[in-house]
Amino acid sequence: MANPLSYKTIDWVGGLDGAVEMIDQTLLPEDVKILTCRDVGTLWEAIRSLRVRGAPAIGVAAAMGVVLGTRDAADQAELFENLTRVCEYLASSRPTAVNLFWALERMRSRAESLRNLPLEELKQALLTEAQAVRAEDAAICRAIGQAGQHLIQDGATVLTHCNAGGLATAEYGTALAIMYAARENGRRFQVYADETRPLLQGARLTAWELFRAGIDVTVICDNVAGSLMKAGRIGLVVTGADRIAANGDAANKIGTYSLAVLAQAHGVPFYVAAPRSTFDLSLENGEAIPIEVRPAEEVSQVFGRVVVPEGVGCYNPAFDVTPARLIRGIVTEQGIIEPVHRDRIREVFAG
Amino acid sequence: MANPLSYKTIDWVGGLDGAVEMIDQTLLPEDVKILTCRDVGTLWEAIRSLRVRGAPAIGVAAAMGVVLGTRDAADQAELFENLTRVCEYLASSRPTAVNLFWALERMRSRAESLRNLPLEELKQALLTEAQAVRAEDAAICRAIGQAGQHLIQDGATVLTHCNAGGLATAEYGTALAIMYAARENGRRFQVYADETRPLLQGARLTAWELFRAGIDVTVICDNVAGSLMKAGRIGLVVTGADRIAANGDAANKIGTYSLAVLAQAHGVPFYVAAPRSTFDLSLENGEAIPIEVRPAEEVSQVFGRVVVPEGVGCYNPAFDVTPARLIRGIVTEQGIIEPVHRDRIREVFAG
Repeated sequence: MANPLSYKTIDWVGGLDGAVEMIDQTLLPEDVKILTCRDVGTLWEAIRSLRVRGAPAIGVAAAMGVVLGTRDAADQAELFENLTRVCEYLASSRPTAVNLFWALERMRSRAESLRNLPLEELKQALLTEAQAVRAEDAAICRAIGQAGQHLIQDGATVLTHCNAGGLATAEYGTALAIMYAARENGRRFQVYADETRPLLQGARLTAWELFRAGIDVTVICDNVAGSLMKAGRIGLVVTGADRIAANGDAANKIGTYSLAVLAQAHGVPFYVAAPRSTFDLSLENGEAIPIEVRPAEEVSQVFGRVVVPEGVGCYNPAFDVTPARLIRGIVTEQGIIEPVHRDRIREVFAG
Repeated sequence: MANPLSYKTIDWVGGLDGAVEMIDQTLLPEDVKILTCRDVGTLWEAIRSLRVRGAPAIGVAAAMGVVLGTRDAADQAELFENLTRVCEYLASSRPTAVNLFWALERMRSRAESLRNLPLEELKQALLTEAQAVRAEDAAICRAIGQAGQHLIQDGATVLTHCNAGGLATAEYGTALAIMYAARENGRRFQVYADETRPLLQGARLTAWELFRAGIDVTVICDNVAGSLMKAGRIGLVVTGADRIAANGDAANKIGTYSLAVLAQAHGVPFYVAAPRSTFDLSLENGEAIPIEVRPAEEVSQVFGRVVVPEGVGCYNPAFDVTPARLIRGIVTEQGIIEPVHRDRIREVFAG
């Protein structure tokens, strides 16, 4: 299957004097508008405001942001100064998705390893590295799809939360990659997409992707999932992840934990799909994962309309942590980690 | 405590040639606007569109609607014809809340019992009966509050879903009556209100009520509740109900079932608060409760903004059923039914 989106979520266009282009995801599904970022400030704002979102796509954006922030250096010393500054700056955009930090670290160590190159060659090498992050992510997503596609058999009913699709990655997705691969293999199945409050990525993005790919998708409010499971109408839950600790505890969009508890209560298998770059082996378990709390206005105002009375507070955490014991398996580009256990995870990274 | 709303949710104003006045709840919290219904059509639309909602308040509206639909009859025969027609018509407005059917039946049998009165006296008696439904509901809500107030101790953290407050009843509420009564008894506690998609009754109505009553309330998206329970930040869940079967299975706003499963998984007591008029003893269990499925547009459009791509379906059930085994107790005007069991429920109605 070609890229089911027919747009690239994020890409570098042109040579070293080019720019980052991305779909502005805050405008979907009504408008498909391409945002061009020529400077790091615009890119930082795009990450912060979720114009580009999804852990792997944020990683790609960060890598390309490093290029934007270093390409104008007049000499090597300035480049490395700028590199430090741009990495710190981009790291401040969003705290939970580890792929952001992973990509920044990759760009930094690439630059270090090429310290002896002439300035222009070094700059070019950083662009090549950022483009490689993107290309590798696309390939990794394909591999995740292949690794997990057998989970979706003919006639299956699958529930997903938020958007772990092509829009969340370079292309193809993680949780949705499994659906795209199953579809390529000719299987027919039904997907329920949680709308995913407050920013409605499930309704706006996941439904948009799946519909364009010819996959049967129905949107539900987040609080419908439990009753669908009770009615036997969900056979499988698959979500993405933003950071996975060494023991398999996985942070993902707020509401994922509730889904996992509900899935267990109803005997529905719950899988996470994520590339290896989403694992943070420095964390023993999920309790150490920093959880971003976003502005109350994302909840109290809906498209400018006030829905919470003035004076009333809103608590708006963007993520929650699902403990490994509730996760049947984690689908990675190297196969499925199942059961989810610290030792199995260590093996994948030792390989 | 005086009526914490300072507005009457629904009331009959004037004599037999008067009208039904209600707060148009679709406009809260931005606008407090009183809707006047002088004919049954306007009242039917108000129920259907959730301008008045909440099982007990719908019961009051239905009783008053019978007055609107019969007061112009030229003779006794016409009055009884109109009575039959208006009861059928109002019964078609919403299917799940049993209080609607209970109130219509009460008005019908009152009329039957007074068949021998002169026409004008009969009409006046029906108005008196509708006003009694309202007054009794207010008194019943107070009694529910008293019966349940000890559940909320100083420093408690309480979660509620949708709106089971003064806006859902004649006044004072069911689940929120317990909070108001605990507050009257000087206790300080914190309430989390699920925003309650798709129509945001928790954000718009529950937060509005509690804030006006000086109770500490924080709004969360529905999918945050599970992670709050996991963090030990919820000590009690209380919701209302729209229909309760003979075994204690309770239909309530969609998402209530998920909350009950989550509460059980975290050892958090889950209570339902409802008047006896919410019980439907003709139903053996909750599977027989009809569940209203509302228009997809309530999910796919938010204040006119399209959030689901064209061509994609939405499944929008308005209610789900929580099995009795997940309910710690049902708080009624006659005390708490705990444990929730068919025999205990039968006792309450035999008394």
